[in-house]
Amino acid sequence: MPETLHPLQALLDARYADASPKMAEFHPESESVEAALAVLLQHRSARAYSPRPVAQPVLDLMMAAAQSASTSSNLQAWSVVAVKDPERKKRLAALAGGQRHIEQCPVFLVWIADLARLEAAGARHNLPRGGLDYLELMLVGVIDATLAAQNAAVAGEAQGLGVVYIGGIRNKPEAVAQELGLPPRAFAVFGMCVGYPDPERPSDVKPRLPTSVVLHEERYDAARNEQPVEDYAARMLSFYQAQGMKTNGDWVQHSLHRVRGAESLQGRDRLVEALKGMGFENR
Amino acid sequence: MPETLHPLQALLDARYADASPKMAEFHPESESVEAALAVLLQHRSARAYSPRPVAQPVLDLMMAAAQSASTSSNLQAWSVVAVKDPERKKRLAALAGGQRHIEQCPVFLVWIADLARLEAAGARHNLPRGGLDYLELMLVGVIDATLAAQNAAVAGEAQGLGVVYIGGIRNKPEAVAQELGLPPRAFAVFGMCVGYPDPERPSDVKPRLPTSVVLHEERYDAARNEQPVEDYAARMLSFYQAQGMKTNGDWVQHSLHRVRGAESLQGRDRLVEALKGMGFENR
Repeated sequence: MPETLHPLQALLDARYADASPKMAEFHPESESVEAALAVLLQHRSARAYSPRPVAQPVLDLMMAAAQSASTSSNLQAWSVVAVKDPERKKRLAALAGGQRHIEQCPVFLVWIADLARLEAAGARHNLPRGGLDYLELMLVGVIDATLAAQNAAVAGEAQGLGVVYIGGIRNKPEAVAQELGLPPRAFAVFGMCVGYPDPERPSDVKPRLPTSVVLHEERYDAARNEQPVEDYAARMLSFYQAQGMKTNGDWVQHSLHRVRGAESLQGRDRLVEALKGMGFENR
Repeated sequence: MPETLHPLQALLDARYADASPKMAEFHPESESVEAALAVLLQHRSARAYSPRPVAQPVLDLMMAAAQSASTSSNLQAWSVVAVKDPERKKRLAALAGGQRHIEQCPVFLVWIADLARLEAAGARHNLPRGGLDYLELMLVGVIDATLAAQNAAVAGEAQGLGVVYIGGIRNKPEAVAQELGLPPRAFAVFGMCVGYPDPERPSDVKPRLPTSVVLHEERYDAARNEQPVEDYAARMLSFYQAQGMKTNGDWVQHSLHRVRGAESLQGRDRLVEALKGMGFENR
């Protein structure tokens, strides 16, 4: 038996609380493989930043990583708006529900599902483009933007940055579009605060559901959604208490509170209507 | 001036063809940072695999990475079905438009936007869950699944695997759901072939739009969608010809062909109706 823990074991223990897989059998091929995996496993959202600015080459590598992600049929149906202006960040923070870390982070990236580029190319060449009116293409834009954003997040974290995704950017889609000058057929899917984490206010890895709940073999097994979820909910209640987090009960109660009805969606219950006005028919 | 190229420069040159940023100013802090960035930058889709199986610990690390990705309000509104059975892969390949690499890859992962887990928890505890009927929550599921999938892809590629995303899994959503036994409020967002790339059939890094087209400063600049896009379209025509790829003209013509109308969406023009039948009201 090994005397020392596998270097990734501590990260897995944090990720799965007391339900983590044991790493004896994991043999990453090299230290660089292990380093890349550690970047992924040690993610935690950063909501407090040091004032240290983010240098352009660091952002350039985040962008190169974002653009290296897969994209549906190479359509590249996404864009990103980098906001550094304090006044604009303040306005966006207000639109996203008053999240102070948007004001505080040095760079706020807004990730856009962007069909406007294809629309413009089609108009220029007088080519038909009726497919853009379908929900399918909106999803392509959302998926492309998300793949790109996650690669950017990983590239940022590899370079020592912290990030947090901001779904609140969907609270008021038209106002955000106006603030950013988005053309029709473009909308802000989520924001991302980027900066060096404040060393005085570190955040912790948040435990997730056991892998056995989310990974199904051959066919979906609905039984996994029962007792293991209740066990996780109870574990998370301990985590919330240890962290001093204010939540609405355990994970089940907290999560269901979040989806209880239109009134819990912070304005996003009118997303269909808002998107329609912004050029997404979602047919 | 340095005598030798920066080790990441070759990757950037491939990614941006002749429009790549120069790396003199990039100074990754360590070799492990550089290794992690190289994994991201050298992505190329693999569509031909060696018969070598993928060991469970390798998949476990992909899953731990997937679960380490951000998730909206920690809802974890996603699942994944790992398909290895040759007959099931064959049927899924047929449903996704006859893509042979789905049959050939040792593991086919189907990524699920999964609101069924929250539905089950709500039903168990008799909690209201009307929010699940809104487009917003479907998007949360799609975004969560995509963040997880991309982390899994990076963790796989770090370990020497190749992957390719399969949007064709949305061609026939109900049949895919039936094949995988998905409950209501769950749908397959995309598939992902996973395996060791066939060394005899390597794939190339595909050049992307210049960063200046997709990255906007402070506000969206629609002018970037004009001439730089035409220049890229012409560069891609050379790339297609050099690779012997069959395409419908340059990047603009090829992309617009893909979105020309309902008939170009391979069945996905009825996604709204299909999703409705599967429990996604998308209100």
